[in-house]
Amino acid sequence: MEPFDGLTAFLRGHLEAGDGPRHRRLYLAMRAAILDSRLGPGARLPATRALAQALDLGRNTVTAAYDQLLAEGYVTARTGAGTFVTEDLPDTFHDAAPTATARARHRPPPPSRLVRRLGPREEAGAAIDRPFRAAIPDIRAFPWATWSRILGRRWRRPGPLALPSDPFGLPALREAIAAYLRTSRATACHADQVVVTAGAQQALDLAARLVLDSGDRVAVEDPGFPGADATLAAAGARLLPVPVDGDGLDHVALPGGCRAVLVTPSRNYPLGITMTLARRLALLDWARVNDAWIIEDDYDSEFRFDGRPVAALQGLDEDGRVLYAGTFVRAMFPALRLGYLVVPDGLIDAARALRRGMDGGTSTVPQAAMADFLGEGHFASHLRAMRRLYQGRHDALHDFLNRELAGALTPVPADGGMHVTALLAPDLSDQALCTALDQAGVSATALSPYYRHRPQPGLILGFAGWPEDRLRAAGDRLAGVVLARVVTGAIASPVKRA
Amino acid sequence: MEPFDGLTAFLRGHLEAGDGPRHRRLYLAMRAAILDSRLGPGARLPATRALAQALDLGRNTVTAAYDQLLAEGYVTARTGAGTFVTEDLPDTFHDAAPTATARARHRPPPPSRLVRRLGPREEAGAAIDRPFRAAIPDIRAFPWATWSRILGRRWRRPGPLALPSDPFGLPALREAIAAYLRTSRATACHADQVVVTAGAQQALDLAARLVLDSGDRVAVEDPGFPGADATLAAAGARLLPVPVDGDGLDHVALPGGCRAVLVTPSRNYPLGITMTLARRLALLDWARVNDAWIIEDDYDSEFRFDGRPVAALQGLDEDGRVLYAGTFVRAMFPALRLGYLVVPDGLIDAARALRRGMDGGTSTVPQAAMADFLGEGHFASHLRAMRRLYQGRHDALHDFLNRELAGALTPVPADGGMHVTALLAPDLSDQALCTALDQAGVSATALSPYYRHRPQPGLILGFAGWPEDRLRAAGDRLAGVVLARVVTGAIASPVKRA
Repeated sequence: MEPFDGLTAFLRGHLEAGDGPRHRRLYLAMRAAILDSRLGPGARLPATRALAQALDLGRNTVTAAYDQLLAEGYVTARTGAGTFVTEDLPDTFHDAAPTATARARHRPPPPSRLVRRLGPREEAGAAIDRPFRAAIPDIRAFPWATWSRILGRRWRRPGPLALPSDPFGLPALREAIAAYLRTSRATACHADQVVVTAGAQQALDLAARLVLDSGDRVAVEDPGFPGADATLAAAGARLLPVPVDGDGLDHVALPGGCRAVLVTPSRNYPLGITMTLARRLALLDWARVNDAWIIEDDYDSEFRFDGRPVAALQGLDEDGRVLYAGTFVRAMFPALRLGYLVVPDGLIDAARALRRGMDGGTSTVPQAAMADFLGEGHFASHLRAMRRLYQGRHDALHDFLNRELAGALTPVPADGGMHVTALLAPDLSDQALCTALDQAGVSATALSPYYRHRPQPGLILGFAGWPEDRLRAAGDRLAGVVLARVVTGAIASPVKRA
Repeated sequence: MEPFDGLTAFLRGHLEAGDGPRHRRLYLAMRAAILDSRLGPGARLPATRALAQALDLGRNTVTAAYDQLLAEGYVTARTGAGTFVTEDLPDTFHDAAPTATARARHRPPPPSRLVRRLGPREEAGAAIDRPFRAAIPDIRAFPWATWSRILGRRWRRPGPLALPSDPFGLPALREAIAAYLRTSRATACHADQVVVTAGAQQALDLAARLVLDSGDRVAVEDPGFPGADATLAAAGARLLPVPVDGDGLDHVALPGGCRAVLVTPSRNYPLGITMTLARRLALLDWARVNDAWIIEDDYDSEFRFDGRPVAALQGLDEDGRVLYAGTFVRAMFPALRLGYLVVPDGLIDAARALRRGMDGGTSTVPQAAMADFLGEGHFASHLRAMRRLYQGRHDALHDFLNRELAGALTPVPADGGMHVTALLAPDLSDQALCTALDQAGVSATALSPYYRHRPQPGLILGFAGWPEDRLRAAGDRLAGVVLARVVTGAIASPVKRA
């Protein structure tokens, strides 16, 4: 009974440490004993009744574990003789537990070059729901009762909605998106061109993989959105930053040999600058001459306070060279993760094949509700209400900065959006200031990391998510920290400029 | 008034053809007139009142259209003088409409090599909800009332659930998945390793981009799932088919120099073969010796009728070289599009960076409901009910084939799954048979396209989605067609084998 006793102790240890049903834990423990040669090839297993007694388990539990081992081939039963560990398992699995050296030899190969290039990215902090976090809509002002009613109604008797769906998206939603874009954004598109995605990020990913080969040069805005960089980098693109001035991205500064250019004509992130018409037309011209694709990221077209969003670049394109990405995340709520890509007619078949290989489409659970939300007019009225609300908050923050922090923080003029970008004197460190603000209970995003060249210090201050009293209180704390730090010079940048 | 009259006719034509509000249609029509030089640089626009009368529109409509043109820079207003087309738009946009030759010159560049390699893929036919479509669960037996109640409840007051979410997925769902996999699949994993995806396809895409570089050799099962091919091809992999025999993929046949191998140990698609334990251990050994990754696609582990799913390969891996993909689509409903990838600890950071760049995560709308559905035990009881239901349907179909079609269609033995694969005599064309079956109102999937080498004709017959009376009626039609065609030789393969 000697090996049996050692085995009992081993099994008992495993049983106590594991979770799940007891027969499962016993199975895993026995398996471990077989794999590390505690029970070697040909070894006889204890009789179920004896083992049950030794471990204080029901006999059914032991039988169930043995059955599983039998079903998976770890053991074989010989009638009348008992149960034995299978003889022909590969030898290496019966070696003693590998030493540290042996383990090191067995490390898996390196991951793809792609992910080694990506590097770690900053995680979102915990303080999401706090002024002045950027890109946070006011989720308290969202019509949740309507949304939850639509969801519940749609899924009570879903019928064909539950069956395999078109990877391009639910036809009803694609029609609703095409109609919305034609009317509100002056895009020239029909529903067949619309691909429903899990947000603007996936739309950019799809666009990048559709038109870029590894190593291709892609012009991007400087400053611009780092999330888009990661997406383009994942497609193997080499990014060439091009400065954004007061009229948007300047085509004259575009380098040669680009396969594509990524632009945000409606509103540059983070500066909030809208690209002028002359620049838009010139960019289309440049793309024609340089045989390049244009990826238009229209992530934030809805919140223009004069109510007249500038028409999309896509609607001006006659060649079919613009891929147009948008999102519902900012106008609805972030966790919805629903966006769209409008592809030129010439790329529809390619996009279908690619999308099928990427993820086979987006869940119809939010799609069906979104189609109803658009079709029944809830989206339009929510947008109208949010435009009014956000304009009030924008104006209040803008006035506050000009009144209380003139000379310290200078807002960049913008006629919409969900944040105010304000510049600091060039010798100050926006990252040190953001750390100090965080300690004072205020979220702000440093501007300088959004630049690829010649970073400009400043703060990105989201105002959309909170009522004016919360913004006011946060504003007072912001002013306190900024005045204390900026005046004392405590946040001077380590490397001062001339 | 001559140009004005020609303009009126042009605008009227555009107004009648368009959709959306009238001021928007007028804006688009005026813009088109400017861009095609009907209204050249410096041209004076008609007075709003005169144009309103000429077009039978309200004056406010015309004013709104002019304001939009003004806001976008197409026109400029000179006080007292009127409104004029802007002078400094780039000249190329005032050229006459491009000729066919000019248009051809302006075609966009080719798409990426990736999508050119993918080629078009077959679209799913319209007859989805008809026996014997494969991979269709019984959506009539799904507890929709519970599901819609959970959805409505979750989204009535979602709180932080509406805010930006972790791209790896909702923590509650990841915990629930890790617990489920540990208990039901004997995987060794914790919630940090679990990435929620839009189905198994996206899990494979993520896995492929994590560990493969363009041009890498990847061993795949033959026969195997073409959808997985497309995903690996999209990551730039070169696929090397390895035959599957009665014990699963044979490691002895694996070619050298592979960066990874993609396997379905629980149940090969489409043959339904489960990989033996000896083969699993040998495969892990091979991967160690060859320094390769293993991608385990466990797409169909739930429906094993003896109730004891074989433990996953992932749980046997000591090196952290197995990436494990699974899906809820088959056990829940197809359009849910919710799956998961379990990555080794060593790849968690890389996967986070990559996932963020891919799509920033999956909508929390279905995730929150799925977490509740799992946590409240609805998933486990639904699985139990479906196992019983599907076993009955499987046995009925299996018996029917053996009784009525012996000699014509030979079922491959399998102890679970949602379809029966049945072989035809090697000189018959399964694709011609499927066309004939489709005309008789029966869906079946031809087996031969699932082979990369030496295709074997047969039928993939999904039985899960329909009650036995519908399966019986479809079975009778199937038998009629098969007997008529097979006996008369009308579906003989064009190229007969010796």
